[in-house]
Amino acid sequence: MAKRIGKQTVAIDDITIISSAAVVGPKEAQGPLAKDFDVCHNDSLLGEETFEKAESRLQSQALQKAISKAGRKSEDIDVVFAGDLLNQCIGSSFGLMNFNIPFIGMYGACSTAALSIGTAAVFVDSGAANCAAAVTSSHFCSSERQYRFPLEYGSVRTPTAQWTVTGAGAFILCKGGTGPKVKSVTFGKIEDLGVKDANNMGAAMAPAAASTIAAYFEDTGAAPQDFDAIYTGDLGQVGTDLLHQLLQKEGLKIEKQHRDCGLMIFDCEKQDVHAGGSGCGCSASVLGGHIIKKLQSGKENNILFCATGALLSPTSTQQGENVISIAHLINIKNR
Amino acid sequence: MAKRIGKQTVAIDDITIISSAAVVGPKEAQGPLAKDFDVCHNDSLLGEETFEKAESRLQSQALQKAISKAGRKSEDIDVVFAGDLLNQCIGSSFGLMNFNIPFIGMYGACSTAALSIGTAAVFVDSGAANCAAAVTSSHFCSSERQYRFPLEYGSVRTPTAQWTVTGAGAFILCKGGTGPKVKSVTFGKIEDLGVKDANNMGAAMAPAAASTIAAYFEDTGAAPQDFDAIYTGDLGQVGTDLLHQLLQKEGLKIEKQHRDCGLMIFDCEKQDVHAGGSGCGCSASVLGGHIIKKLQSGKENNILFCATGALLSPTSTQQGENVISIAHLINIKNR
Repeated sequence: MAKRIGKQTVAIDDITIISSAAVVGPKEAQGPLAKDFDVCHNDSLLGEETFEKAESRLQSQALQKAISKAGRKSEDIDVVFAGDLLNQCIGSSFGLMNFNIPFIGMYGACSTAALSIGTAAVFVDSGAANCAAAVTSSHFCSSERQYRFPLEYGSVRTPTAQWTVTGAGAFILCKGGTGPKVKSVTFGKIEDLGVKDANNMGAAMAPAAASTIAAYFEDTGAAPQDFDAIYTGDLGQVGTDLLHQLLQKEGLKIEKQHRDCGLMIFDCEKQDVHAGGSGCGCSASVLGGHIIKKLQSGKENNILFCATGALLSPTSTQQGENVISIAHLINIKNR
Repeated sequence: MAKRIGKQTVAIDDITIISSAAVVGPKEAQGPLAKDFDVCHNDSLLGEETFEKAESRLQSQALQKAISKAGRKSEDIDVVFAGDLLNQCIGSSFGLMNFNIPFIGMYGACSTAALSIGTAAVFVDSGAANCAAAVTSSHFCSSERQYRFPLEYGSVRTPTAQWTVTGAGAFILCKGGTGPKVKSVTFGKIEDLGVKDANNMGAAMAPAAASTIAAYFEDTGAAPQDFDAIYTGDLGQVGTDLLHQLLQKEGLKIEKQHRDCGLMIFDCEKQDVHAGGSGCGCSASVLGGHIIKKLQSGKENNILFCATGALLSPTSTQQGENVISIAHLINIKNR
């Protein structure tokens, strides 16, 4: 039975991530985490005709891989939670349509990995599912076309710009079993600090990360030093610096434990990705490929995973709205 | 504690819809259900500068109204589930950002009302929330611009076309309390019957409705005559006829109990809406305004509410993909 702790956190019991998988594109395959991913593609199109179909394929491959690593079949999964960045989330719907699993579509922008795993964990904990899956993807080329310009336009990127990760992560959650456990979920509130620059997502998302991380510590009474690592999704360099400043104002110092998936997935300088990786596939593939392995091997035993999302659209930006944001956090622990 | 029944249905216990509200636009205010809506606007812009901001306002007004009808305050709501049809779901994020409630974004296209209420019910049942809200909206003008053409283009509508409802519905769910109760949720699978015509949503969504309704009857052993009414979301005339045919093949006759929210909200002939109303605000406002009142007054005591969504985007249609669809179903009962 789930139990509310404080205002935003839900403690849950004995829900295990029995397997995970990460599938990525060519640029991620040249980055420092390459060896941790289950599948590295050397073609951005994955043999498909369009980037959108390629993104769907990232999702279906990641889910297929996670299911088979768990020694299960699709029919063992009671419900799948999934989301992506494409308009009307077509990466998820077309990617997962053939699995024949009851489907719950989610939209959390780049916070989707934490959101979908957290919601899946509540479902399994409640008995609404015996076994649930969570899948998240993004694709550099489909994102650039949709949010900015077609690649052929060759537009110049700002120094604060981040590079959308081509990748997907999938997770299988069950009650009991062996593996790292989701111990709590902190669902975030929408934050607005008045950021207007849609090319500076890190700055827009840092306040949401700060708010949710601070809420977690307030709700649970835990402290940063209790954790082997505190991961954020895709703040990049600009957002990371801002997060540290914002949390210091709340009396929280996380510099020592903090790592940002957006700064881990690429060698930012050598790979010319400016402020770091981004996109909901960034945190999903780093968690599904790299972090879960660290937990499984016992190199880390207790971590926080906080994925942040910017809740904007090209329309809202063109209409002069601020870049508002949200962050959801899960605590994953070995036992 | 939630309990799985059969393959797709989750039975839940004593979760009450303690209040609901519906806010609609001018065309809906001239339709047959006008007197049931909480707020009828006579201006499509609701005094805002853009249709997107107007849609956000529909959501915020509906949630505010539902909270105040429940005699609660925003801080009493532990989590809000919300979705809409706009790219990146900005109707929900900008509409609900000022409520300061932990926010879970959902994407189910026009199935969002059933999806968000169903997911909220599982959360309250599990103890993850004591009180949850579910909000859904659509807006004719923001949808036309995004999915089809700007209104100024004056494009001709096909006979099978439906009219996107300008409206929002909001629901407050708690454990115990007085009011109609969510007794079970049937989460749907993605269906693909090869429909290519993006102007014939009814035909695309009917297979999903048929699949989820049949799954409900199979999972629970109930029969159509057990219900005062079986509501679908926005199949319109074309989809309604097709649904009856598809269910007859499964040995299920629902004609007597079946009503479609898309055919209820407008006088299709007089209001020139072709095949009926559509959009996720259609089923949300008809449920929040009209159906919940029927349950509260005891005119109906046991109903099924099945909202259907077409999981397409203009991009998927342009790339030649089929119009795939999904339907989620909730059983609402007085006691």
